[in-house]
Amino acid sequence: MPIKSLIRTIPHYPKQGIQFRDITTLLKEPAGFRMVIDAFAQHYATQPIDKIAGIEARGFIIGAALAYKLGVGFVPIRKSGKLPAETIGHDYALEYGADRVEIHTDAIAKGERVLLVDDLIATGGTAEAAAALIHKLGGMVVGCAFVINLPDLGGSKRLADGGFSPFSLCEFEGD
Amino acid sequence: MPIKSLIRTIPHYPKQGIQFRDITTLLKEPAGFRMVIDAFAQHYATQPIDKIAGIEARGFIIGAALAYKLGVGFVPIRKSGKLPAETIGHDYALEYGADRVEIHTDAIAKGERVLLVDDLIATGGTAEAAAALIHKLGGMVVGCAFVINLPDLGGSKRLADGGFSPFSLCEFEGD
Repeated sequence: MPIKSLIRTIPHYPKQGIQFRDITTLLKEPAGFRMVIDAFAQHYATQPIDKIAGIEARGFIIGAALAYKLGVGFVPIRKSGKLPAETIGHDYALEYGADRVEIHTDAIAKGERVLLVDDLIATGGTAEAAAALIHKLGGMVVGCAFVINLPDLGGSKRLADGGFSPFSLCEFEGD
Repeated sequence: MPIKSLIRTIPHYPKQGIQFRDITTLLKEPAGFRMVIDAFAQHYATQPIDKIAGIEARGFIIGAALAYKLGVGFVPIRKSGKLPAETIGHDYALEYGADRVEIHTDAIAKGERVLLVDDLIATGGTAEAAAALIHKLGGMVVGCAFVINLPDLGGSKRLADGGFSPFSLCEFEGD
């Protein structure tokens, strides 16, 4: 049972022309969810990692389970205004408009090796902003893990060019 | 190292008079995060569970790691308009105003035994609404697990009175 076959495609969501890749059908299957986390754990088995940073909100699901599996701490990267203590933020451009991600200033210590996790890599804007936050705190981004890569949108190339070592479990072309 | 000592209190957040209990300081410590998940796993070791439903967004972190540990599927319960496929929703009252949680209609099958997970139980309004969604789909709520209970706000009693078996790892009084 390949991971990709458990991902549901929802046509024209959230808007006309977008094929939304929905991982909830994968997560609700015990074997599917386990396969995702175990595949990441195996990929990073020999890589020293101090913390996993998960990007709100689906990155929390994958990132937290993987942090537990690897025996490391978990750090949330959230949309603007959601974290209660002192934060730093990073603004980034969207196709129309802008967005911002934030992290607690005490989330990562200087020199810590951080694995960034989200469900999907599209244009890479959010992941790049999240990586910038980790750098600002003195952390090292040792990799970026995604369940799904949409290679046509260029995000994985952008992250690779930036030295952020993207890795994904499956790809959907034509997005 | 008790779990409670790793939880940070932020005075007057998000508004005057509220003591916010911040679990990010607990999650980022490998031993703390592991202790939380292992304590839940031990508590529910003899309880048959088919799925874990996590409430957005901190419930995703705890719920997903626990689902992985228990070898069951994970289902997200989200705020209004966030889930891509067909949903049902439940509206509930807040101190000022109203809110709504939603779940995919195919998230839970009739007769499935579901453990509801969130980081904190205060008045219990969100958890009760989430439990109602699980019931509407024909699932059974076998328990509600929280890292933190604020007993003075009455939510744990409300859930217990409703037959939803609340369980928490620590309490803060005077909230």
